[in-house]
Amino acid sequence: MNRSLSIRSNHRRNGSQNTSTKRTGFSFNSLRGNIQPELSRKLYRIIKSENNLITAHETAGRERISIATQLSEWGEQTNDAAVSDVSDKVGVILSELGEQEDQYAHSLDDARGVLKHIRNTEKSVQPSRDGKDKIADEIAKLKMKEPQSARLVVLEQELVRAEAENLVAEAQLTNITRQKLKEAYEAEFAATIERAEKQIILAKHGRRLLQLLDDSPVVPGDMRPAYHHAQQARQILNDAEDDLRDWRPEQDDFAVDPSDSVSNARGKQSVGHDDDAHIVAGSATGDRAARESDAGSVVSDGTRQGEALAAH
Amino acid sequence: MNRSLSIRSNHRRNGSQNTSTKRTGFSFNSLRGNIQPELSRKLYRIIKSENNLITAHETAGRERISIATQLSEWGEQTNDAAVSDVSDKVGVILSELGEQEDQYAHSLDDARGVLKHIRNTEKSVQPSRDGKDKIADEIAKLKMKEPQSARLVVLEQELVRAEAENLVAEAQLTNITRQKLKEAYEAEFAATIERAEKQIILAKHGRRLLQLLDDSPVVPGDMRPAYHHAQQARQILNDAEDDLRDWRPEQDDFAVDPSDSVSNARGKQSVGHDDDAHIVAGSATGDRAARESDAGSVVSDGTRQGEALAAH
Repeated sequence: MNRSLSIRSNHRRNGSQNTSTKRTGFSFNSLRGNIQPELSRKLYRIIKSENNLITAHETAGRERISIATQLSEWGEQTNDAAVSDVSDKVGVILSELGEQEDQYAHSLDDARGVLKHIRNTEKSVQPSRDGKDKIADEIAKLKMKEPQSARLVVLEQELVRAEAENLVAEAQLTNITRQKLKEAYEAEFAATIERAEKQIILAKHGRRLLQLLDDSPVVPGDMRPAYHHAQQARQILNDAEDDLRDWRPEQDDFAVDPSDSVSNARGKQSVGHDDDAHIVAGSATGDRAARESDAGSVVSDGTRQGEALAAH
Repeated sequence: MNRSLSIRSNHRRNGSQNTSTKRTGFSFNSLRGNIQPELSRKLYRIIKSENNLITAHETAGRERISIATQLSEWGEQTNDAAVSDVSDKVGVILSELGEQEDQYAHSLDDARGVLKHIRNTEKSVQPSRDGKDKIADEIAKLKMKEPQSARLVVLEQELVRAEAENLVAEAQLTNITRQKLKEAYEAEFAATIERAEKQIILAKHGRRLLQLLDDSPVVPGDMRPAYHHAQQARQILNDAEDDLRDWRPEQDDFAVDPSDSVSNARGKQSVGHDDDAHIVAGSATGDRAARESDAGSVVSDGTRQGEALAAH
């Protein structure tokens, strides 16, 4: 891992040697990306790239399984009992490696679904920001042109409502963003570990199978000693099957120090604002009714509203 | 691993639900496959499929690295210090996951190169088989038509030479096939284990990073507690880098019982025919001169030749 401690700064410094591929030029995909609201555009693209990643792993799994069958059939036509048996059994292992690759793709797809929650929330927060800004602009213009206009009072009231609504939207955004970011990549890392551990099991048993193949050279005209390992080879496959069945996700042994500020913050939080926190966390993304009722509860609490606007 | 103990029989029984993709219909690839000699056709196709597999893993690596950069940039635009730092550092981990995927593709490519030795030998053995068969056919026909023909003596001599030449070719084929099959898949399994172990290291440190992100919900208008984990996050990346650098291939703990017949056969072999074995093993595939000199040495050894033809 010979890289700097930030991929971001890295990317800027070595912009020209950047190894990531960027879609450039015209394409339907990039067009569709551009009609996304500014706020959700980056995540929209990430979700598209995750789809390419998933497809690549699916393809890898499929090719593995295809190679497995072909290898077995090739082994059969060699008319060499040892090569035939070992290639067939190695084929079984390779095929299962492919299945694991495919399951990995499915797990990545689940994680991708979690990222969509963030994107959808981003998408729904954009109009709230825009609406608030639009009213503020209108007030500023009107103050210049007609400082005594009666419409100013109405607009100021509208702005307070829009700010309250936006305050809720922004809280929903930060809550969903953090929860779902964590959830999505925890799922990806767990899937990475699962695929890795299962493929290690398979590869190690695959190596055992290869050791059954006597590759000492023969001289022309000499017969190979007969192959006596069919039973042993079957046993190796049974062992691999048992080991896979017994696999369990390991409890992660890395833990954050419980006295640090993450836990403290969480502790404080749950004492102070349990009910509201529950409402915000529970409100469905883009659920207009829920969002409005949240906004209402904030507005009715004069003190909170004042504090909030001040902080804002 | 819910499958039978042979992928071959499996394939036949469940032919219709076979998950592997078969190229069907017209394509330049399948045409090119058909002009391969019969003997090397299956392996030719396997080598093509391995290429698809390698491309899939390369694509997966590239997409991972692209997602890593995009995630970091998305995090920056959230204007949330915690999300920004964690997404950037998780991006570094993801990017390295992608690099490992790419290195895996390179290792698979090396293993694929080893399989080509078998294919090339198969290709070069085909004319030897065909030549021998052609002479035998000619003799059979001539015996029917002109049993007294003087040409029969010449043809019989040619057949003995062709059989001797083919005997060497077949010995080369079995030697190369077993050695290179073992070598290729040992390399693939070793690469699978290396990628898996390194990706486990990365994924576990990635999980640690995610634990630094406080995802307890906030209520509208409340500020998030300040993010204090930048130092800790950097340390996690340092740990990941150290762990990757310290990674060593594990000695395989599966060993075949040294008293079994593989080792015995190898032992016997090395006592009996060390020199010849060396010549056969050492002769380059398709190296006409080397093959002829092998054939010569066999022919000059009357006893061996007799035995060999009898066995044949």
